[in-house]
Amino acid sequence: MITITALKWVPSFPRGQVRDHRLRWVLKEVGWDYRVELIDPQVQESKDYRREQPFGQVPVLREDGRPTLFETGAIVLDIAQRSGRLLPADESARAWAVCWLFAALNSVEPELMEVATCDFFIEDEEVAKGYRAFAVAAAGDRLRKVSEALGDRDWLVGEDFSVADLMMASAMKIVRHTDLVEAHPNLAAWRGRCFARPAHEAATAEQLADFDRHGPADMGWDQSLGRE
Amino acid sequence: MITITALKWVPSFPRGQVRDHRLRWVLKEVGWDYRVELIDPQVQESKDYRREQPFGQVPVLREDGRPTLFETGAIVLDIAQRSGRLLPADESARAWAVCWLFAALNSVEPELMEVATCDFFIEDEEVAKGYRAFAVAAAGDRLRKVSEALGDRDWLVGEDFSVADLMMASAMKIVRHTDLVEAHPNLAAWRGRCFARPAHEAATAEQLADFDRHGPADMGWDQSLGRE
Repeated sequence: MITITALKWVPSFPRGQVRDHRLRWVLKEVGWDYRVELIDPQVQESKDYRREQPFGQVPVLREDGRPTLFETGAIVLDIAQRSGRLLPADESARAWAVCWLFAALNSVEPELMEVATCDFFIEDEEVAKGYRAFAVAAAGDRLRKVSEALGDRDWLVGEDFSVADLMMASAMKIVRHTDLVEAHPNLAAWRGRCFARPAHEAATAEQLADFDRHGPADMGWDQSLGRE
Repeated sequence: MITITALKWVPSFPRGQVRDHRLRWVLKEVGWDYRVELIDPQVQESKDYRREQPFGQVPVLREDGRPTLFETGAIVLDIAQRSGRLLPADESARAWAVCWLFAALNSVEPELMEVATCDFFIEDEEVAKGYRAFAVAAAGDRLRKVSEALGDRDWLVGEDFSVADLMMASAMKIVRHTDLVEAHPNLAAWRGRCFARPAHEAATAEQLADFDRHGPADMGWDQSLGRE
């Protein structure tokens, strides 16, 4: 049996994109059963959990008889390789799907996250505005290059949806409050194809339902912080 | 034969840490011969190169009879897995080394890069100062957690140096102009062990020698921009 960890509750910005979503999505794509253990900051900061997840984040993946894994990228790659799904059969395309998986995590997501940081976490408006101009230029450059690489194909690598698409589309959620992706119609259409997949829709509904059953107090937050 | 790409010249900040360094390092660790093709922005922006590296960055790895790979993380993992080196023999430890490889690229490097962005790329001093306070807190939190996970062990995973150490130590170069790593003596000592490895020292000398043979004009830069 597989268990993944997720947070009991988050505010609206990260809903549908907290990292356990990527595991719910990939597990539903390959058709593996799993249960979700919802955790709070008390667990995240505990020594037991930090031994499984050095940064105290979600998710980890526990599986009977196998080492507990952390880091979404490592887990998604492991599931794809073991299931024989979500990776192209052709050797070259399979290697490229892994390259694109890393690209999503190290060449695109960090740039997009800086935009979101300015929009959601930097309190000084002048600082946020000043840094945002730099961040948007960097993020826009990366998205333009993904758009050019995608061209008029349906998926990033090969003929079918793969972990490359799953991870890149997930990363792009970080700027869903902007029109940075929409600036590239082929990218917006590809992202739409990714998000319309039944496994994605089910993963999203499942994550949101977990949050709906909890509130900020379950995360040890002052209730007032949970007002939106 | 293996060929990797690298830049002809860069200013002082990224010397010893441009991404081809990680490939030079891992290739020297496993003892595989390679040649380096030095490129400039004209090549980086060319359609032929962008077909190999969608972002126009360095490095790629070309090898006779195999698909050309991009993204340092993907390439380092591929080399470790094919060589049977730099990954622990024990199954659990091997899985964790891959988790830590991803952690270096997606949970530590982005936070460190934001500090460097403030220090080297944001021109408005107030913006840089304001954002830097946020970035230093985030980077410091991640480094503290790596330090706690390392504890008093010699290497991040298992008994020997692995790709986890190679990638994490490489990421930490990004803040070598600060004392963020030095705030954790065990981390500074571990980083020292990584950097003292003959393969690291040889990779660094080799990258610097390539830059010494070129100047900003070789990158199409105005000579005045090269003054430091």
